[in-house]
Amino acid sequence: MKFFSPLILALSMITGAQAGLVEMSVTYQQGGATLEGFHVYDDAVKGTRPAMLVIHQWTGLSDYEKRRSRMLAEMGYNVFAADIYGKGIRPQPPEAGKEAGKYKGDRTLYRARLTAALDLLKADERTDAKKIAAIGYCFGGTGVLELARSGAEIAGVVSFHGGLDSAPGMTAAVGKIPAKVLVLHGADDPYAPTEQITAFQKELTDAKADWQMVFYSGAVHSFTQKEAGTDNSKGAAYNEAADRRSWAAMQAFFAELFK
Amino acid sequence: MKFFSPLILALSMITGAQAGLVEMSVTYQQGGATLEGFHVYDDAVKGTRPAMLVIHQWTGLSDYEKRRSRMLAEMGYNVFAADIYGKGIRPQPPEAGKEAGKYKGDRTLYRARLTAALDLLKADERTDAKKIAAIGYCFGGTGVLELARSGAEIAGVVSFHGGLDSAPGMTAAVGKIPAKVLVLHGADDPYAPTEQITAFQKELTDAKADWQMVFYSGAVHSFTQKEAGTDNSKGAAYNEAADRRSWAAMQAFFAELFK
Repeated sequence: MKFFSPLILALSMITGAQAGLVEMSVTYQQGGATLEGFHVYDDAVKGTRPAMLVIHQWTGLSDYEKRRSRMLAEMGYNVFAADIYGKGIRPQPPEAGKEAGKYKGDRTLYRARLTAALDLLKADERTDAKKIAAIGYCFGGTGVLELARSGAEIAGVVSFHGGLDSAPGMTAAVGKIPAKVLVLHGADDPYAPTEQITAFQKELTDAKADWQMVFYSGAVHSFTQKEAGTDNSKGAAYNEAADRRSWAAMQAFFAELFK
Repeated sequence: MKFFSPLILALSMITGAQAGLVEMSVTYQQGGATLEGFHVYDDAVKGTRPAMLVIHQWTGLSDYEKRRSRMLAEMGYNVFAADIYGKGIRPQPPEAGKEAGKYKGDRTLYRARLTAALDLLKADERTDAKKIAAIGYCFGGTGVLELARSGAEIAGVVSFHGGLDSAPGMTAAVGKIPAKVLVLHGADDPYAPTEQITAFQKELTDAKADWQMVFYSGAVHSFTQKEAGTDNSKGAAYNEAADRRSWAAMQAFFAELFK
């Protein structure tokens, strides 16, 4: 499968926000649905390179994920931000909760959408297929964990303030989790009760997965997103220290994966 | 207080294991006890520099802590490995458990010993007193957390597979923990039951301390110590990945503290 046809390139290439970055919208299909992802890379990097899949939070692929994707592209990665929901489906709360719920309630569908995006990224000529990782935020954090649980043949996944719950009958299978797992978590995240954390850690340990989990004090849900404001009492808020530290932890993780 | 008199230097300076490192034994006093610590620094570094206190595991100050101290000195720190137990007191199990228990059961005494070592390091002419951190292993992990709980005016502490329990009436006080806290922990550590972890996180959160905690899968107690062997079923064992990752996490933490 070829990722970008010359036609798509011609139609959708736009000037990157940063000098050297090339970015474009990419329309693709899964299960009859039309999806619109975002591809960005540094044109100054030649040949294949490590690649990064980015999975969006509950409001769908937004400027937030595009900004993170550009940050990764500036680090040299070939980056594809997936669209799980479908072209034009970019809901705000409370609709966002319903839309996310569709996929959290149907992990088979969620995995199919994740895998479709991963397959595109894998097939791109810039991708070093042995050096792929995925990161996700909130809903997308759940997504990258689901990708790991699916047994995806990638180097690693990073969840930022993601939900940790698994679906019945779809938990991680013993010895079938090639991806190393890094979970970056707000210690005060009200959306992840202690029982969920304990169950998640037990699930991955029982599966003999290689996992790490970092807790950041004073951080609630959405701690990497300035858009969330700074009122912790709302359960979702930006936290500058946790944002900075989690990005650094991700980079250290990648340094190990892609050394 | 002057740290090293010319006399002590003349008596105890020995050739460093690494070119550029100067290392020596240092005898000092606390509460009538004679203690023998270990000082190491890179002589090529001029003037004051960030400084590091190292607290030993349950068998007392050993070659293990000296090796870690040298690694830190090679990174440019002025390093002092404390002696909590007293000169010549270097017990092996099961005596080590009894000796450690003395201090874990008397946190006032433990804090006094920790503070004595910190005061020496602070007073040394090579130390930038605004840039001091402490690291500790197992028993010493408990120690550096105790140092943080005591309100010590240092930049940060790092616990490697340390015990997390506090003593009644000596828990962290609200707003009185200047040190940032990083806890590096084996997810399968049998010496830290879930209740202890939960209580510790609550204690530090309630105190409004800046803390982070990292869990490493597949790691039990003593995961940084090759001397512990590799049989996880013993409850204490070396884990190469957790060792490497925890050292890197510590370095990232220092990069933030001393930027």
